[in-house]
Amino acid sequence: MSYLKNNKILEELRPFFYPESIAVVGVSQDPTKLGSAMLRALRKFGFRGKIYPVGQRITELYGLPVFPSISAIPEKVDLVRIYISAQHVLNVVQECRDKAIPAVEIFTGGFKETGTEEGEKLEGALASMAGKGLRIIGPNSFGVYAPETGIPHLDYASYPQDSGNLGLIAQSGTISEDVCRLAQDYGFRFSKVVGYGNACDINETDLLKYLEADPLTNLIAVYMEGPKKGREFFEILQRLSRKKPVIIWKGGLTPEGARAAASHTASIAGNENIWNAVYQQTLAVRVDSLEELVDTITAFYHLAPIVDNRISVVCSGGGTSVAATDTCSREGLVIPKFGNELRQKIATLLPPIGTSIGNPIDVGTPYFPPAEILHEMLGYVASSGVVGSIVIDKVVVSAKLRKLLGYGEQMNWEDTQWLEEIPVQVAKDHGVSVVMILREGGDKTGDLSYETEKRRLRKYYQDNGVLVYPTIGRALRALGRVISYYRRKQALGE
Amino acid sequence: MSYLKNNKILEELRPFFYPESIAVVGVSQDPTKLGSAMLRALRKFGFRGKIYPVGQRITELYGLPVFPSISAIPEKVDLVRIYISAQHVLNVVQECRDKAIPAVEIFTGGFKETGTEEGEKLEGALASMAGKGLRIIGPNSFGVYAPETGIPHLDYASYPQDSGNLGLIAQSGTISEDVCRLAQDYGFRFSKVVGYGNACDINETDLLKYLEADPLTNLIAVYMEGPKKGREFFEILQRLSRKKPVIIWKGGLTPEGARAAASHTASIAGNENIWNAVYQQTLAVRVDSLEELVDTITAFYHLAPIVDNRISVVCSGGGTSVAATDTCSREGLVIPKFGNELRQKIATLLPPIGTSIGNPIDVGTPYFPPAEILHEMLGYVASSGVVGSIVIDKVVVSAKLRKLLGYGEQMNWEDTQWLEEIPVQVAKDHGVSVVMILREGGDKTGDLSYETEKRRLRKYYQDNGVLVYPTIGRALRALGRVISYYRRKQALGE
Repeated sequence: MSYLKNNKILEELRPFFYPESIAVVGVSQDPTKLGSAMLRALRKFGFRGKIYPVGQRITELYGLPVFPSISAIPEKVDLVRIYISAQHVLNVVQECRDKAIPAVEIFTGGFKETGTEEGEKLEGALASMAGKGLRIIGPNSFGVYAPETGIPHLDYASYPQDSGNLGLIAQSGTISEDVCRLAQDYGFRFSKVVGYGNACDINETDLLKYLEADPLTNLIAVYMEGPKKGREFFEILQRLSRKKPVIIWKGGLTPEGARAAASHTASIAGNENIWNAVYQQTLAVRVDSLEELVDTITAFYHLAPIVDNRISVVCSGGGTSVAATDTCSREGLVIPKFGNELRQKIATLLPPIGTSIGNPIDVGTPYFPPAEILHEMLGYVASSGVVGSIVIDKVVVSAKLRKLLGYGEQMNWEDTQWLEEIPVQVAKDHGVSVVMILREGGDKTGDLSYETEKRRLRKYYQDNGVLVYPTIGRALRALGRVISYYRRKQALGE
Repeated sequence: MSYLKNNKILEELRPFFYPESIAVVGVSQDPTKLGSAMLRALRKFGFRGKIYPVGQRITELYGLPVFPSISAIPEKVDLVRIYISAQHVLNVVQECRDKAIPAVEIFTGGFKETGTEEGEKLEGALASMAGKGLRIIGPNSFGVYAPETGIPHLDYASYPQDSGNLGLIAQSGTISEDVCRLAQDYGFRFSKVVGYGNACDINETDLLKYLEADPLTNLIAVYMEGPKKGREFFEILQRLSRKKPVIIWKGGLTPEGARAAASHTASIAGNENIWNAVYQQTLAVRVDSLEELVDTITAFYHLAPIVDNRISVVCSGGGTSVAATDTCSREGLVIPKFGNELRQKIATLLPPIGTSIGNPIDVGTPYFPPAEILHEMLGYVASSGVVGSIVIDKVVVSAKLRKLLGYGEQMNWEDTQWLEEIPVQVAKDHGVSVVMILREGGDKTGDLSYETEKRRLRKYYQDNGVLVYPTIGRALRALGRVISYYRRKQALGE
């Protein structure tokens, strides 16, 4: 732990992530006020430190004494979260300075992002109060979500309460919220999340340095609109992206998007050419939408480092094979043709007609290989040494799904349990990455049987190191980005 | 109906879609045999004509008499569906000729797609038997799904039994099956579907001519690997795409995909340059994946013709605004800045801080506008004349969803029902297109409350002319394709 103690940025930002006491400024009897909502969220989310509500017109809320001001709190406060209107924020921050409070988060908007002289002035004053022992996140920000300590975002519904290794920083609170909400579905968990808004003090460069040093973070995702200090940001990114994968979604890359970014976080967005250079000169992984961000996080989160770009696709139907091959080719992945020996082994397992044994393997349609056959076939491929990953699409591996698809009468029910375990076994036995496609849709209107079974399977695979995606296109794009990252890293000798 | 009577292709292919009697060749006691499965499917799907099972070793199946051969059937047969192995197919087709049966579908594989001399020869012989009153779909094909007549694909589970206006033809049976399975979720329905496989006789050109003439089809979707008659295909496509939108997913556009296509349907895939020219010189709409195909079908299916490419995005959160603006820009859509008058009207409705009134409209986050406010705001935008479509993302319009998101305490419960009706009302009152984003995910593990409510809402919107997508990226890409089609069509003076 001496490593942690000696690291300046870890020490300095520690109160944001590991506070022993939090003051919430802006609570009232009105449950719709954000301060009150935050108070409820902190308790429901299980924060175990002390909580000091601060408000003007009440003396008690949800069983806690309410203080009229920060200075009225008799004890030490590590972190203050502010939910009052902009014109009152400066006074509260001044009180925080006076009380030597090290960390302040400001949710409030109405600063530089308004584009008004008044807003600009307020933010300037705020920025000048930071430093000398006081650090500020915001204004116009969602602040920290740290499941380990029980600190929620502003919001908490459907956020995971358990921790993981993903550090997420987002200039937009709503986008960090989006990613957090999807974590349960995609099976990743967070070390620390920060919605950092206008970044009057703490900016993306500070946060990247923190996540670089944080031993609980080994994967970093970023949504940003414009870096505050371009040169410094680039340098830390260049260094950091060689140590831990850094996925960056840069909002405002189009001229129209850049204008929107200016009125959101007062960011100077930078044009696409500059950012193309950033992606080329660092190992940062480029994504351009929420879907791509979540898909790429998922792949990095669950996969071991992988440099082998050769894929086997195992699917049902010739069209599926052709489409998968096109997508692999577009994503820089290789579908090697299998040699004669491997082809002959596979040929012993599949019907001779309506199937394809080269690569992709088309098991035929509608054909539901019995467990024995599937296990043997995947084993041949996984142990062949000619591919690093196997992607399985439209080969139904759950007895219940087979039945729901109308093929119950063609099932061997002894396969029931074992069938779904095969992808997990193959990945473990042969050290290949296995990706399962569990497609969206399929239920009749008003029915949720298909969805229910898919979610059960998804959870089972996520818990056992098998990646799951709803479409093969999304899977291959995410896989392509992960492999490309580790290949570039290898090429640099890292 | 004289139009129908006089059209040669409608007459010629009529028995495939409107047969009064169907013979199924290849039934047996074994329920896993495809012929037996087809027999069950025909009955479960509600085909009301006569069904003649044909098989060797049984005399009755599922209560129907089984005939030993086609020639043994004493009555007139309109359509024969064949599910026996390749070497026996020719004899059965010869019997069909002898009995003057006009339509034969061959599911069986093992022909030209095998790449063997034997397969090539068999397919040549088959092709030479077509014509003079007998037309063939296949071999290596899924055949026809025509809900109007109660004719299923090979498969039937989760296929809609009601009809619609989408004609779908796919060289891959598995891909036509994929699209059919997603129809319930995306709210579109079919006039006719044909999986046409190797196309030894009836090919994409014939089928496009049929769908051109079919009065029940007003939208056409195609998955193909290679046209049999390039020049004729191009000419019909050029003409047809000006009358009815034709969405084409061309499989095998990459060199690797082209090789896969050759072993799937023995197609000569053609390179990407040729296809770029096809898309430029016709009004065919390009898609490159199953997801894009389904999304684009959905938009064409539900939207009236629309040439106005100006969009308003109404959302929650600055990051969402920036991302939406980037996507619009990339898809050729315009997000016009609102003029002063409109901005001032909107400003009267929203909090001054943490919102944006230009365009996108950011209603703030987390802020759940009451029904009155939302209705008035959307009304201002829809009646302004400066946009043709409104896309609503992350503005929760169902009381139940608001509650599930943890904002129940901030709800005005009188809004409950009316809230969700607002997008429908605005679309109807002002003649704009409204697109709702109902995002994926959000449930805690093991819970389906969020999914259940989303599906209810989705159905309600689809039934009432409001488009629904799971992500704004998918929505804008699909909308962009529809608008681009109608703008190109208008530019040609059509």
